[in-house]
Amino acid sequence: MSLNEVFNVEVNLIEQAIFTHFEEKASLAHPGYEKLKDSVLYSLKTGGKRFRPLLSLLTAKALGKPLEQALPVAKAVEFIHTYSLIHDDLPCMDDDDERRGQPTNHKVYGEAMALLAGDALLTESFFLLAEAYRQTPAIATEVIWLISEAAGTVGMVGGQAMDIEVPEGGHSEEQIRWVHEMKTGALIRTSVEAAAVACQASPHERESLRKYADLLGFAFQLADDIDDFDPNSPESTSIINNQGVDATRAQLLEVTEKCIYAVEGLNAKGLKTVAEFNLNRV
Amino acid sequence: MSLNEVFNVEVNLIEQAIFTHFEEKASLAHPGYEKLKDSVLYSLKTGGKRFRPLLSLLTAKALGKPLEQALPVAKAVEFIHTYSLIHDDLPCMDDDDERRGQPTNHKVYGEAMALLAGDALLTESFFLLAEAYRQTPAIATEVIWLISEAAGTVGMVGGQAMDIEVPEGGHSEEQIRWVHEMKTGALIRTSVEAAAVACQASPHERESLRKYADLLGFAFQLADDIDDFDPNSPESTSIINNQGVDATRAQLLEVTEKCIYAVEGLNAKGLKTVAEFNLNRV
Repeated sequence: MSLNEVFNVEVNLIEQAIFTHFEEKASLAHPGYEKLKDSVLYSLKTGGKRFRPLLSLLTAKALGKPLEQALPVAKAVEFIHTYSLIHDDLPCMDDDDERRGQPTNHKVYGEAMALLAGDALLTESFFLLAEAYRQTPAIATEVIWLISEAAGTVGMVGGQAMDIEVPEGGHSEEQIRWVHEMKTGALIRTSVEAAAVACQASPHERESLRKYADLLGFAFQLADDIDDFDPNSPESTSIINNQGVDATRAQLLEVTEKCIYAVEGLNAKGLKTVAEFNLNRV
Repeated sequence: MSLNEVFNVEVNLIEQAIFTHFEEKASLAHPGYEKLKDSVLYSLKTGGKRFRPLLSLLTAKALGKPLEQALPVAKAVEFIHTYSLIHDDLPCMDDDDERRGQPTNHKVYGEAMALLAGDALLTESFFLLAEAYRQTPAIATEVIWLISEAAGTVGMVGGQAMDIEVPEGGHSEEQIRWVHEMKTGALIRTSVEAAAVACQASPHERESLRKYADLLGFAFQLADDIDDFDPNSPESTSIINNQGVDATRAQLLEVTEKCIYAVEGLNAKGLKTVAEFNLNRV
């Protein structure tokens, strides 16, 4: 069974929420807006594992809260992840024609509309968080603070900037870890931590979940590296280049065990299953 | 005297704040991050009238509050305005090589870094608002709600999407107004309204300021249209195409008078001066 099959209730809830969100915004229905909406929905519907929003909902579950309490966080992190893929695929970045077996956004809607679709998704993330948690503004503010930090200059965007600026002689091992942590780890961690804030976790619960998310982010990157590794064309930023495949596998096992142990005190069956899936995919 | 000379105290405060913001973030100082920071700062430093952030500070003044209380809003709207210019100038959008007599961001830093600089500025806007108003989360949440709405799908980004999707036979007059309102008016209005919220304006004060900002946004667009109008190459979305130059000038005068009248009850000398400047520039 795939992760999406094991958690089909959660994944269905996420997909229904992210698809209807922009449909509901379409009431203005001006010509250019329709195309923007179509462009946004196209990328939201081009599948994916829904890994980040799933983490948000499973965090709610681990805290014994209704899934709906973390749903706005789940939507926001999926919108941000989707925007980053649309911008990443643009000709000036990775210049990809396909993603998940389908033409990339700009191949269907043109580069200008793809650029705007990404901008719209990013902006909408913060709007929906402010709107959804408006009645509990301390939660709204902290969730927005966490997610915008993870997505911005010291997080995802900063990591992408470092990734495209390879210094002479390549990145050092320390720099590789930084790029990974900023580009991928930060948003994964915030998917859990912001959900914990939205579900009013106690300081102790939040600390356990944060530790889990830190380690999961790292484990996720290690598994990605093992998955992507091709000895004939090593990527400049892969950890494997520095320590080899076997050592990376051993490290993945160790990090996963620590990750699962971090949430021992919670009722976190779902979160543990995610960490095991990540381990077993490579 | 120019607007920047009349309000040199306010403009200096704004420029110092927006320039130091990303310098202070540079403590990480990884190679790619340095270039991202340089790219962001390059566009922030390429001048401009600082029109939007000036409105935010003059709103604080009209309410008898210290300028610093609206400074985070001022920074956020200038960051968002700057990001929109960087993305607008990209080859897939307007493909401009110069802005304000200087090479555009992507001409200096490359398209990929320009794209990321825009993404970083947009994300940072919401981060800085959450951080600055964290102690008053109801204010933080409402300010972020207002600004993200103005910048997003039903505001600036939506307007840009409509603008690049010209229907067969051109936009109707109603559509032209919509594009203007969403693309330009929304962010100008929010520069005032979000500052009013940040300065804890009373409902009555906020209503007056909102009315002022609505009318100023419209007056600003009318003046821009008169300024840009070239009878030999009319743009598809100009109001002037539909009603002619003279009628547009008369309309600008009428809208400006209403705009100034809207803040009669406040100590709003600065805001009135801005409306007069806008009238007199054409």
